[in-house]
Formats: sequence, structure tokens, C-alpha cells
Amino acid sequence: MEHTELSDGDGFLTEEDKEAIGRRIPVKEYAKGTVLLREGEVARESYFVLKGCVRCYYIIDGEERTTAFYTENESAAALSSYARQSPSTHFMQCVEDCTLSVLTHENEQALIKEFPGFAALCRSSMEVGFGRSQDELAVYITRSPEERYQHLQDTRPELLQRIPQYHLATYLGVKPESLSRIRKRLANR
Amino acid sequence: MEHTELSDGDGFLTEEDKEAIGRRIPVKEYAKGTVLLREGEVARESYFVLKGCVRCYYIIDGEERTTAFYTENESAAALSSYARQSPSTHFMQCVEDCTLSVLTHENEQALIKEFPGFAALCRSSMEVGFGRSQDELAVYITRSPEERYQHLQDTRPELLQRIPQYHLATYLGVKPESLSRIRKRLANR
Repeated sequence: MEHTELSDGDGFLTEEDKEAIGRRIPVKEYAKGTVLLREGEVARESYFVLKGCVRCYYIIDGEERTTAFYTENESAAALSSYARQSPSTHFMQCVEDCTLSVLTHENEQALIKEFPGFAALCRSSMEVGFGRSQDELAVYITRSPEERYQHLQDTRPELLQRIPQYHLATYLGVKPESLSRIRKRLANR
Repeated sequence: MEHTELSDGDGFLTEEDKEAIGRRIPVKEYAKGTVLLREGEVARESYFVLKGCVRCYYIIDGEERTTAFYTENESAAALSSYARQSPSTHFMQCVEDCTLSVLTHENEQALIKEFPGFAALCRSSMEVGFGRSQDELAVYITRSPEERYQHLQDTRPELLQRIPQYHLATYLGVKPESLSRIRKRLANR
């Protein structure tokens, strides 16, 4: 998290602490197409998106299946790999040129030791992300592909403009032809 | 979390702190069938399952659609409602008699103020749960109902014994008849 992005509603950190923490979390630029993590690698870093879009995907029987898009002010992390330092089951890639703040486990632990309030801030931010992930899973389980497309239109309309259609199709779990049909049907309403 | 359940790999809390925290988080018993949270209510509590099973479900067009089962040593919380104190979009119900430790927002904030290391512990535990939720979403997006059933068999075999078939069917996104067919097919292999 860049220091300007640090929000701390619960007041566990002073302004000086927040600035000091912000200076200790490096911000890096990545070109479109950069693969941040490969299947089988251990995630050593977690990211916070300042600009751009990170895609999470699996390769199943030789085909890419997208499971998440992370954009501005969202955390992008392969958490089960990062938390347990075990091999990742998926890939993470920059779909656009990205500006990310990059946190390693070591840096995170050091910051928490030095600034105990940082853990409270991470906890809050993770709570929001976790809640969003629960909601997404629920939408996936309870809705049809067309309803999921409409849900994206309602909740993340900018994503539909930014993401190539073939990524969007695998994310919705349909063939690109079906996605075209869904779009046409909804446009004609 | 009951004090015996507190694990703190990162060493941010002393043993005395952990015991003191454990004593401050009430443990409650709930009868099978108890609804912990209803659609439209704000989640005031988050739970940690010491014994039993909590089910999360939506009602869509009059039908229940299950999106999660939480069992021993898992957190069970409607996080997007709990984190933002906004109305919940789903229900939470005890599928078995349950023993849960119950944390309110106020208690959580008070404990973090008093024991800054508690936030680090919550952060770690949330990281693991969040990672699991990401994995589940990925399984849902990338696998067929039959493959999802097999995945449950591999990763949570006890769940298949504990959960009524009609809940399991809505969780897998199939009709009960299809679930019977899947089970027969797999049994005949």
C-alpha cells in the first residue's frame, strides 16, 4: 500500500506511522503481460493495485480459466500460497501496465513488529477483500452466466470495457460465442 | 476462538495474553437448525466453529442455494456485512448442534486495543480463510459438478457424511437427482 492509500478507520496508527510504513513498502511498475506468479511457484509477494489490472488464472487441460480480476485499490495475492508458503495452483498476470505496491512476508512481519497497528490495518483491509471474495463465490454459485454478466455490469462496469472478451468469457464460464450472444441479448432489451 | 484454539505462529502474543484473550471471547451452544443470521440483518457477530457445522445460504426465487459449509476450526462470518455493518445478502444456519466462539465488532476492537498482537493473529487466521475461499471460487469456476464432488471427497470427505444430500446438491449447483447419478457413477468406478 502506498502511504497515500493507507486508510485506518479504527485509528490504530498515527499519521507519522502511516507515512513511515508507506515509505517502507516499495511501489513497482510492471509492463502489460508480465506474469507475477506461475503455477508451482511459491508466492513470495502480495500486491496492492495502485493502477492497472491483475488477472488470476488456471490452466486446465491446456486452456486458461480466469478466476479473478483485481483493479485499483484492491489487494491481489495468491493467499493460500502466500499464507502457507506452498506452491501456487494458479498464475497471476498483469492484463494492463500496472503500478503495484509490493509486500513480502518478511517485510510484512517486520512492519507488524515495529508498528503493531499495521496488523489491525491489514486485518481490516483483508476483511473487506475476504467479504468481497465470499460475495463473488455466492454470485457464481447462485447465478447463471447471463446474470453474472449483468452483475458485473452493475458492480464493475469499467471492467467490461477494460478486459479482453476472451478473458471475460472464461471468467463467466462460457465460450466466447455465448458471451457475444449474452451481450447482444442484453443490448436489445 | 476459545483460548485452547489460539495459535500464534508469529509469536506476537505471550501465553498469558492468549489465555486472557480466550477468557474474553464467549463460547456458546446452538441447537441444530438455529438461524444465526438472516438476509437483511446486519451481522453483529463473527463465529469460530469449535464443534458442529454452519451453513451459509441464499434464497433465490424461493429456493435455498448453499454457498458454504464451515466446520471445526474454521471461521464462519458474513464478512461483507460484518466488515461494513451493512445488511446481509444471505442466511447462516447451524446444520448440526454447534459450539461456537462468538466475537462482536466491539469486543474485537477492544481486544486489539488492549492486545495489539491479537490483530496479527486475526490477520493470519483471516489470510488462511481468505486463501481457502479463493481456492473454492477457483474450483467452482474451473470444474464441473462431478469434479467438484470429487474435490470435496478428496479435501473434506467427512462433510459428505455429515451434510444432508439436498444441501449438498444446491452447493454443487445440481438437482438432487443429478447428485444421485454423480454418486452412483463414482461408486461404480
